[in-house]
Amino acid sequence: MSTIAASPVTAEERVAAARERMLRAKEASRQVALLGDDAKAALLTAIADAIDAASADIVEANADDLSRGAVEGLSTGLLDRLRLDDARVHALAEAVRAVAALPDPVGRVLDERTLDNGLRLQKVAVPFGVVGSIYEARPNVTVDIAALALRSGNAVVLRGGTAAASSNAALVAIMRGALAAAGVDPEAVQTVDDFGRDGAAALMQARGIVDVLVPRGSAQLIETVVTTSQVPVIETGAGVVHIVLDASAPTDWAREIVVNAKAQRPSVCNAVETVLVHRDAAAHLVPELGAALAAAGVTVHADERVRTLLPDAVPATEADWATEHMSLDLSMRVVDDLDDALAHIRTYSTHHTESIITTDDANAERFLAEVDSAVVMVNASTRFTDGGEFGFGAEVGISTQKLHARGPMGLPELTSTKWLARGAGQIRR
Amino acid sequence: MSTIAASPVTAEERVAAARERMLRAKEASRQVALLGDDAKAALLTAIADAIDAASADIVEANADDLSRGAVEGLSTGLLDRLRLDDARVHALAEAVRAVAALPDPVGRVLDERTLDNGLRLQKVAVPFGVVGSIYEARPNVTVDIAALALRSGNAVVLRGGTAAASSNAALVAIMRGALAAAGVDPEAVQTVDDFGRDGAAALMQARGIVDVLVPRGSAQLIETVVTTSQVPVIETGAGVVHIVLDASAPTDWAREIVVNAKAQRPSVCNAVETVLVHRDAAAHLVPELGAALAAAGVTVHADERVRTLLPDAVPATEADWATEHMSLDLSMRVVDDLDDALAHIRTYSTHHTESIITTDDANAERFLAEVDSAVVMVNASTRFTDGGEFGFGAEVGISTQKLHARGPMGLPELTSTKWLARGAGQIRR
Repeated sequence: MSTIAASPVTAEERVAAARERMLRAKEASRQVALLGDDAKAALLTAIADAIDAASADIVEANADDLSRGAVEGLSTGLLDRLRLDDARVHALAEAVRAVAALPDPVGRVLDERTLDNGLRLQKVAVPFGVVGSIYEARPNVTVDIAALALRSGNAVVLRGGTAAASSNAALVAIMRGALAAAGVDPEAVQTVDDFGRDGAAALMQARGIVDVLVPRGSAQLIETVVTTSQVPVIETGAGVVHIVLDASAPTDWAREIVVNAKAQRPSVCNAVETVLVHRDAAAHLVPELGAALAAAGVTVHADERVRTLLPDAVPATEADWATEHMSLDLSMRVVDDLDDALAHIRTYSTHHTESIITTDDANAERFLAEVDSAVVMVNASTRFTDGGEFGFGAEVGISTQKLHARGPMGLPELTSTKWLARGAGQIRR
Repeated sequence: MSTIAASPVTAEERVAAARERMLRAKEASRQVALLGDDAKAALLTAIADAIDAASADIVEANADDLSRGAVEGLSTGLLDRLRLDDARVHALAEAVRAVAALPDPVGRVLDERTLDNGLRLQKVAVPFGVVGSIYEARPNVTVDIAALALRSGNAVVLRGGTAAASSNAALVAIMRGALAAAGVDPEAVQTVDDFGRDGAAALMQARGIVDVLVPRGSAQLIETVVTTSQVPVIETGAGVVHIVLDASAPTDWAREIVVNAKAQRPSVCNAVETVLVHRDAAAHLVPELGAALAAAGVTVHADERVRTLLPDAVPATEADWATEHMSLDLSMRVVDDLDDALAHIRTYSTHHTESIITTDDANAERFLAEVDSAVVMVNASTRFTDGGEFGFGAEVGISTQKLHARGPMGLPELTSTKWLARGAGQIRR
């Protein structure tokens, strides 16, 4: 008799099969939650070693994805993000080793109090249980999220982009093998990639099984997850990021920070998208910025007042103000004053990062107090909004929501809390 | 010409009108967020004074609700929860004064670091912005939630039970009057009660306007909100709460704690619903407990093994194990060992509070580590899971979710965070 189960055929069967796998992750999460610091670090080191050892197999699986992607007409950019070679596989393993070296976020005592009746209370950091992630076709995310989840004592359910299915399957198999070799239930790392859209649907319906869902990818993917999921979501976000050049902005800071924030790495969420220039500084700042940005290859999309100073700029459309370009394009507008700048930011910001360049302390403090974004800066490049730059050692993502975590998230943001109460027969009077 | 706008007629019109009101709350939230500690405390004191001064009007509005409720056949219990008299109105005002006296949760510095390049980072507590709440026909919640939201620098949008509509309208009008008199935009306190179900629907769709939604009421109401809302929700929960009596449980502690946890106030979420007795202790504990519970008026729903020792107990059904009785009913089962007890809790717990009575330290620590609930206790009554008992001064609710807040929530749980970065021209290399 065959021991191979029939493949699920209908959408309902695929959702049910995905759910079954997630329940096994939940069961396994109990064991992972109780692993000590050393055991978790050793487990991640074993995973890193296994990835290095299987480099040839991973590259071979990735070649399947690449040739399928080429046939399906994926863009050069997408194919590049998908591609793994030995060097990139080794970089994956090294990233896992870096996570292994981070301090254990579990068990931290976050609050402590003893009631008058002697009952001792402690609020401690505990793993969530099962962390889910839905992301696009980047195999490095598969390993990244699994490593971060395991390091913080969680099981993980992964749903990556279909274009990376073979790479992801190979990486998941290697991680599960390393878990089993370490005596940890391999069901703690699951993929629902093979159930396609139904796998994602099952993940978003898995309230009570999956404790938190972290979408990573395009604004559209995140919007779909945020509005569909019944599992609590941590929204990692798109960045329509602003820099305000106040009347007092020093020219050198304005030029260096804007060019850095746009051109150092334009495809990331902390890159600036819109520069708002105070009208009293426009006459000297706009031409200076225009020249520096042109030299850096940046196309400026400008309002009418900027265009009088920068005639070669592209006229900005209404859509430009709300666009995360992800490219060497920058929107620029002249504002009447700080109120005007703050109103523009309220209308168009995605609440990721905004910065003001000013030597006026009152304006700086007003900007810090009134801008409602995850990170609000004075006289610094928005590119600093990053878990690595903040000293977190690794980054789960950058939260643009207000619940649970806001801004760059490190390992502690993958934990919840639990109150422990130790008594000696206390009852309530 | 009349200045009264036409009432919205269709569901779409009502949703749009509710949305308009919520946008006004969001606009007003900017002012409330910037109020200092003293201004917020003074505002709440003014609200309390206004409630006391308008006691007769509030009681009159409440009489409308009561007579409508009587006609509609509300139960005596519901009518009692709905009823306001002068004493209860004064208690509402006193509760607002207690919140006024709490420390300001806004502005706390939660993390601080300076990067090697000199960029100074601070993670500070900030208001959410707009807090929404959907709750049942208890007018005290209207005042409670508004006071907690304002004290933590938030605007608030309220949707109470229709049965309390007149009382809520009176209370909201009084609070808005006190805001206006204090120079604060009255739009910071809104109700969408008058839009009925469409008001609740609009609130749950208000992602980007309302920052967090706190449902309070029955398990069914909370389930509806949690599964429907696109606004992030803090789930405050039903409690199927367990006490485990280990083999070593001292008889006096077992008896006193179980009776206290069930009978002191059976209608609340931290009351115990199921007692699991170790088989080695059943012969002496079950008869002792049975007598004490009978004396307290408690009906025991028992499994077969308990019934051999307590023949008068009602046979427990499968449904009993998953039921929050909210009454003087208690489910009781004999378990083979701690593993059996933990497995039962995993199956039936709502992850609110569980307690073990034991003198075995290893079992106590295993229970604390392995039970996945907001509060896990050793040798104490589950009735201690309460913001007041924990020393928070006021309680927003008891969260049974893992994101953002878990267990009793005080004012700090109504804040988010923001990173402030102060630099001097730093750019990323």
